[in-house]
Amino acid sequence: MCNNNHHTIHARHKHYGWDNSIAPVETIAPGTTLRFECNDAANGHFSPGSIAADVATLDFSTVNPVTGPIFVDGAEPGDALKITIGDFEPSGVGWTANIPGFGLLADQFSEPALHMWTYDAATPALYGPGARVPLKPFTGTIGLAPAEPGLHSVVPPRRVGGNLDVRDLAKGSVLWLPVEVAGGLFSVGDTHAAQGDGEVCGTAIESAMAVTLTFELEKAANLKFPRFQTPGPVTRHNDSAGYDVTTGIGPDLMSGARDALSGMIDLLSAREGMSPVDAYMLCSVAGDLRISCIVDVPNWVVSFYMPRAIFA
Amino acid sequence: MCNNNHHTIHARHKHYGWDNSIAPVETIAPGTTLRFECNDAANGHFSPGSIAADVATLDFSTVNPVTGPIFVDGAEPGDALKITIGDFEPSGVGWTANIPGFGLLADQFSEPALHMWTYDAATPALYGPGARVPLKPFTGTIGLAPAEPGLHSVVPPRRVGGNLDVRDLAKGSVLWLPVEVAGGLFSVGDTHAAQGDGEVCGTAIESAMAVTLTFELEKAANLKFPRFQTPGPVTRHNDSAGYDVTTGIGPDLMSGARDALSGMIDLLSAREGMSPVDAYMLCSVAGDLRISCIVDVPNWVVSFYMPRAIFA
Repeated sequence: MCNNNHHTIHARHKHYGWDNSIAPVETIAPGTTLRFECNDAANGHFSPGSIAADVATLDFSTVNPVTGPIFVDGAEPGDALKITIGDFEPSGVGWTANIPGFGLLADQFSEPALHMWTYDAATPALYGPGARVPLKPFTGTIGLAPAEPGLHSVVPPRRVGGNLDVRDLAKGSVLWLPVEVAGGLFSVGDTHAAQGDGEVCGTAIESAMAVTLTFELEKAANLKFPRFQTPGPVTRHNDSAGYDVTTGIGPDLMSGARDALSGMIDLLSAREGMSPVDAYMLCSVAGDLRISCIVDVPNWVVSFYMPRAIFA
Repeated sequence: MCNNNHHTIHARHKHYGWDNSIAPVETIAPGTTLRFECNDAANGHFSPGSIAADVATLDFSTVNPVTGPIFVDGAEPGDALKITIGDFEPSGVGWTANIPGFGLLADQFSEPALHMWTYDAATPALYGPGARVPLKPFTGTIGLAPAEPGLHSVVPPRRVGGNLDVRDLAKGSVLWLPVEVAGGLFSVGDTHAAQGDGEVCGTAIESAMAVTLTFELEKAANLKFPRFQTPGPVTRHNDSAGYDVTTGIGPDLMSGARDALSGMIDLLSAREGMSPVDAYMLCSVAGDLRISCIVDVPNWVVSFYMPRAIFA
């Protein structure tokens, strides 16, 4: 067992997919703080000079590596692992891609596209002329090994967490994950410099970075799904100028989400002079999908909120 | 035609459901500002002394009356009616109900429940011991007559608007609605003193109030669905202390929304000592449904955000 706080789990201790037979790289006591080096979701495939054609050579067998797993002493099925998210150390380089076959409008955007970002963690990143995306680093993939034996794809999130892509799992948030196996077997990766609710094009500002996490245990919490708490407001970094909002209305939430997003892409393309795929990727890193009304049978309203400050 | 700005359309000029054969109560030129008196969604059925048993005698044939319709001179199908939302004059009395058969968890909450609110528009309304809901008045139902002949239920929202229940259609927002018939035939009602994204129990803080609106016309806008713009941040009235967030994860957004909401009701019931139905109604007036991730096939993450400031 290692109780050294701020011990670093290096990026080479990575695995692809979730499997409760993967040997832990470390065993810790509850109360321990660790620093994790996280690879980006493309496992280092892209660099600042990369172009759209490089999307085609992405190796899907090694996407989204996670650093770990960590065995938490005393964690048993039914417990919750409580993770307090500390500081991020962003690398300053990131990427956003449209990957053919992936994303909410995959049927409409079949060609690969890539935007490389070079950013200073203290300032908004630039996205072509006129749009500036404020950064808010978070852990895209953070989870535990599922009870079910075998190797499970890293792509879908599960009740034990994983590829949650919840943009508020940022500094200061506290996350509770349901434990399904002894020790929990925690891993983290897929760090993002910014993302909106939905991650609509399929990628965020994907960026390698280190993150410091503190682990505690809540016995017999019996959570059905993950929950978390944020230490303060979640949108003040981008809400000062209000929002443009498009809607999708109908009996299916998925269709409503697609319609709302399509409306925003049309609006931004026309008003900002962006190509549709650039607008799509910008929506993914900066805009939010909300369910405005889910009770007025038989039609629901899904809204896409785009912060206007990014165009100021 | 009436060009008198700030002319009032009185609450007795109400209709039930949408029908493009209903005669307009007023014809206006673009640029006109009108003040509308709006009835509450129960059409005056509840008063401060009402109790849960009164939910059973609600007359569903007269719910959600809207004030209007207004014929906007020159509006034609394909145009957009642009509505700038001005001041609200809240009545100071409101209600929130669990109406059997209605609401996101109607299968779990089959008994009627009612909470009456008496509020000062300048201060949060109280919700039992310990919870204070900041007010943000908005128009629950705001829309135009659909092209399709006949009487259409007021309950479902449509591409021409109607019962949108979008909680950010508040003071200062600008809404564009697609016109389907000559004159647009605008009506408004179902004013709410506060609501979260989703309106999960089926009702908000339902409250009669007057609202002042300014109408303009955008020719040949050819909108597919309504869109709007907010003049500033949309959650600063309740976000200062951060959020508790529960999640629902799986291949169906509706199930995810139900799971996220159930998780929050469980959390609030346990921690705040509220009855489950009170927690459900509080979620409806103060909590937000968001789609956190919609691309990580085959599972999506829906989150329910409850502002912690209401318990401070």
